[in-house]
Amino acid sequence: MDEFDLIDRLIAPLATAPGAQGLGNDGATIAPGPGCELVITKDMMAENVHFLADDPPDLIGRKLLRVNLSDLAAMGASPVGYLLGLASDGQRDETWFRAFFRGLHQDQEQFGVSLLGGDTIASPNGVLTLSLTAFGEVPVRQSLSRSTAQPDDLVAVTGTIGDAALGLQAIRGELAELDESKRMFLSDRYRLPQPRTVLGPALVGLAHAALDVSDGLIADAGHLASRSRLAVNLDWTKIPLSDAGRTALNRDSGLKSVVLGGGDDYELLFTFAPANLDQVEAVAFECGVTVTVIGACTIGAGAHVFATNGQEIGLQEDGWRHKS
Amino acid sequence: MDEFDLIDRLIAPLATAPGAQGLGNDGATIAPGPGCELVITKDMMAENVHFLADDPPDLIGRKLLRVNLSDLAAMGASPVGYLLGLASDGQRDETWFRAFFRGLHQDQEQFGVSLLGGDTIASPNGVLTLSLTAFGEVPVRQSLSRSTAQPDDLVAVTGTIGDAALGLQAIRGELAELDESKRMFLSDRYRLPQPRTVLGPALVGLAHAALDVSDGLIADAGHLASRSRLAVNLDWTKIPLSDAGRTALNRDSGLKSVVLGGGDDYELLFTFAPANLDQVEAVAFECGVTVTVIGACTIGAGAHVFATNGQEIGLQEDGWRHKS
Repeated sequence: MDEFDLIDRLIAPLATAPGAQGLGNDGATIAPGPGCELVITKDMMAENVHFLADDPPDLIGRKLLRVNLSDLAAMGASPVGYLLGLASDGQRDETWFRAFFRGLHQDQEQFGVSLLGGDTIASPNGVLTLSLTAFGEVPVRQSLSRSTAQPDDLVAVTGTIGDAALGLQAIRGELAELDESKRMFLSDRYRLPQPRTVLGPALVGLAHAALDVSDGLIADAGHLASRSRLAVNLDWTKIPLSDAGRTALNRDSGLKSVVLGGGDDYELLFTFAPANLDQVEAVAFECGVTVTVIGACTIGAGAHVFATNGQEIGLQEDGWRHKS
Repeated sequence: MDEFDLIDRLIAPLATAPGAQGLGNDGATIAPGPGCELVITKDMMAENVHFLADDPPDLIGRKLLRVNLSDLAAMGASPVGYLLGLASDGQRDETWFRAFFRGLHQDQEQFGVSLLGGDTIASPNGVLTLSLTAFGEVPVRQSLSRSTAQPDDLVAVTGTIGDAALGLQAIRGELAELDESKRMFLSDRYRLPQPRTVLGPALVGLAHAALDVSDGLIADAGHLASRSRLAVNLDWTKIPLSDAGRTALNRDSGLKSVVLGGGDDYELLFTFAPANLDQVEAVAFECGVTVTVIGACTIGAGAHVFATNGQEIGLQEDGWRHKS
């Protein structure tokens, strides 16, 4: 398949924004709305690392877009558009690309964004490598940061935690003791994250700090703690689990390490003043997103998870478990 | 080498703009200056296709940045910053990366841009794949386009044409009849393009259409012709050649096809009203860039090159030559 054929036939119809200029120029134009600035982010995905050759191509495209939209949401930005980079090893046929771009088109409609441009290159000795740059807008100097949490802030998280990491296990043939519907639920959570693109912007001016849970709950809480120079203390019993996640944990308590340490949930982790709890709950309700308070910030350092008995659950060489 | 070590030690010092937020957040912020909008562009490069494993790493980094800055210049935008994507196959050591980022740092200084963020991924089964998204600013709705040339416009080009394609031949051990200084000159022109970042913005409001010569003079003149729905007629004798290029052509007239068909020069090709010739020449002089009028637009279609005798030089199966 000729690269330029591919661009003309499958990519160009996605470039609906005027600034894309029909993909006819060397670049595109974009401007934030009045009183706004742009948030920009770029995430890459490579075959065999972030997806497998036989993964459904539409879900690969949608996940690529969604992990970037999640970064925008974490900074409080409403999504606007994106640039796509595609390095192809020439191993895929037109059917594969049709499905890939159909997935992107579906998510463009869902999230109200447009392709603005990009680049397609042949890389015969490489593997399929994808790069996406996403653009969002946020009121000037109001973007959310992971470095501005305050001591005594409450810490909350959207949705449920651990599903994606458990889903990856299910895809690999583990968790065979779960029924198929639960394994499907978990693997869908891995393959198709739900970026919180409505709640993120609604938290601007309300949350003190935010980031998305991509590296894992403990790791990302740790990023927030170190950047904000305080301690993040989480209550294990409050961490929201899906039915499937809870069932898996009830059968194998060792999966606690997967829930706390696994990544790819793309939920928002954010902090806010305790006095604003009602307002946060009202905003979350309006946005149709479940928000759960799972802990608080204190003076100190690091991210810590405590069990019911007050003992800290920590990372040992063999995984997450109670610290002795 | 650990990816995050690499980021902290080599990439973070490049993130000098406030909007990069010290690379601490999920994205960066950027806003165009008053009266301006942003031009965005993204070009990728892969090992074995756009560069070779033993190419000097600083030049790989600089070329990656410069080809994107050239796209900005072609749209009349002044460069501001960039996002970097790096998919590493783990085959390079710290020395390689130090040189790569030193090259980027050098060009950041030269072109007044800052790293704003990006992504680094491990792709052990792939090849080194680079993606760069560049940001520039241009007065609102004034960006240059390849689709707005007018019949009777003059067509001009910056610098000299064909050097990069001849340089690639020199790198491959061809052109052995040239002396070493000429081969070095040509290969440098291939490895380190000179994006016209000052002239491009100076042509805003003056040029009718512009693009950069990346696919080759004839191909890019053809893009301009088809997007602007007119014919671009070029005079072979006026096409500016470097000393080295002219020497090579004098020895082998068959290299005409390389000069006309080869890519990677990253000069600007632009059109303007004949009445503005003096002003274009004055602006080019102020910017320190040589500009040569090489032809004109007419009603019609396609890009055409004519020899002294009025015959059209065209592409045959065996390369560019006089059409019979």
